[in-house]
Amino acid sequence: MSAESSPALLALDWGTTSLRAFLVAADGTVAEHRTAPLGILQVKDGAFAEALEEIAGPWLARHPALPILASGMIGSRQGWREAPYAEAPAGLSELARGLVAVDGRRGRRLWLVPGIATRAKGGPPDVMRGEETQMLGALAASAARDEATVFVLPGTHSKWALLEAGRIAWFATFMTGELYALLKSHSILGRPMVGEAADRASFRRGLACAADNSPAAGALLHKLFSARTLALFDELPAGGIASYLSGLLIGSELAEALPTVVARLGAAPERVTLIGEAALTELYAAALAERRIAARLAAADATARGLLAIARAAGLLI
Amino acid sequence: MSAESSPALLALDWGTTSLRAFLVAADGTVAEHRTAPLGILQVKDGAFAEALEEIAGPWLARHPALPILASGMIGSRQGWREAPYAEAPAGLSELARGLVAVDGRRGRRLWLVPGIATRAKGGPPDVMRGEETQMLGALAASAARDEATVFVLPGTHSKWALLEAGRIAWFATFMTGELYALLKSHSILGRPMVGEAADRASFRRGLACAADNSPAAGALLHKLFSARTLALFDELPAGGIASYLSGLLIGSELAEALPTVVARLGAAPERVTLIGEAALTELYAAALAERRIAARLAAADATARGLLAIARAAGLLI
Repeated sequence: MSAESSPALLALDWGTTSLRAFLVAADGTVAEHRTAPLGILQVKDGAFAEALEEIAGPWLARHPALPILASGMIGSRQGWREAPYAEAPAGLSELARGLVAVDGRRGRRLWLVPGIATRAKGGPPDVMRGEETQMLGALAASAARDEATVFVLPGTHSKWALLEAGRIAWFATFMTGELYALLKSHSILGRPMVGEAADRASFRRGLACAADNSPAAGALLHKLFSARTLALFDELPAGGIASYLSGLLIGSELAEALPTVVARLGAAPERVTLIGEAALTELYAAALAERRIAARLAAADATARGLLAIARAAGLLI
Repeated sequence: MSAESSPALLALDWGTTSLRAFLVAADGTVAEHRTAPLGILQVKDGAFAEALEEIAGPWLARHPALPILASGMIGSRQGWREAPYAEAPAGLSELARGLVAVDGRRGRRLWLVPGIATRAKGGPPDVMRGEETQMLGALAASAARDEATVFVLPGTHSKWALLEAGRIAWFATFMTGELYALLKSHSILGRPMVGEAADRASFRRGLACAADNSPAAGALLHKLFSARTLALFDELPAGGIASYLSGLLIGSELAEALPTVVARLGAAPERVTLIGEAALTELYAAALAERRIAARLAAADATARGLLAIARAAGLLI
């Protein structure tokens, strides 16, 4: 390893089902990274210090003064220790102020990044934990970091967020991915589904169903049933039902989220930044394109960059 | 058995998971009834004639000329034989015209009631199979059978329907019950749920969340997540999460269905007629009461009465 890329931080993306570790240089370059099935659901009896040794022991031995920072569910009540939520609007400095320390083996200290909570007036709270670090990392890598930026992070619990002046000003969660998986695996809609191939025409048809906001069209509880009836009347191929359902759910997420984004920005966004798996961000980009919104993809190492930026804001870097 | 209650019909409510059989007198009185776990999913290799013997063999032997009429999924593609859907608007005479015959043992003929299909202009189709018979039976037993009547049949796939001049003029399906069961058993929302007891305050809170139609409140994909966050912040007791989710879903169903009902009637309905299990109709009655809509319960033997009315319209009664 050259002096230029000498690591400045051990960055951990520590979620529910997996643990990713990055050796990050001061310029944001990732020198090495490792992934292990050591998410908080897999680590038994709170043996998080042992899990840290397992994924990063040699790195820690090699770099005795390397600071360690982790984001994700490891900082939840079910994780190593709870790092209480920072209140939105929050950016690097609020997250840095909320870091919580835990002690690993051999006196090594690990810092946990807090999640962010928000609450619309009179409404229920909303939370994120891990996504804040991804978004701030993507923003740090962007040339347009001071512009208002709309982020969409598709997934089990999709997040939409608006970043203003480097801080997460607003966000909301949508249970799109979890509902899709449930309906596909366990509902009457999944039974006739055939194959995993993406069917673009059926996906677009699902988007169109979601976009129909006439009163007679109903909303999601009614529209979901069309995935059954269209198949029943052979108006949807068995190989297209999953794509139709995907389009219906992703389209419904857009229909729910965009009005708030528009109200906050004063206009429809020209583009949003997507962070997520390629197969999923491609579907969201297609759905956004139907509404004439462009999508750009965040850099792949957004979490590592975000952790570096938080560590710097906290004065943890050597 | 007295001469007055001599049976006029063997009526079968033959669904996906159960088979109910009724000996019905000409005045609608049910003299005897039996239930067996002989739904179309349980009967193997198309042995429906054997299933009929199993539940009603002695009755058939005792009454050699008794007509036999069945409604429900037994008339679907997965049932004994497909009785093609009648198109809404449809009432007794349309269903009677659509009866399809199958032959049981010893030359006994059984008639299958068709389901009903409908399609909003340009929208996907909707279907029912079994509920049409329940509603027409409830209407036959009602003093107000010529008035426009709104029916709500809560369940796995809830049905809302408007009956005008004795015919099903409009209906729509909502996947409320299936979604509730999926989210309770398989989603992140179900994990912290404790107990089965109904929590009226949490149920009403779910109704209120569903009724919030401000843009910032989002719709179902976002609102569902509040069942998690409210529990996370100890703003909802673990024993109340299931009731909150139930209120959120039932309230969302009302919010979806009522605008179409109002558009068709020209005003909000003063009352609706509920058909379903007591625990569920009670929740729907409470949800409707919050919107100042009264609920009345249909007679319990609506299916048997409906089958009798269809048999009469078809000229099957002796």
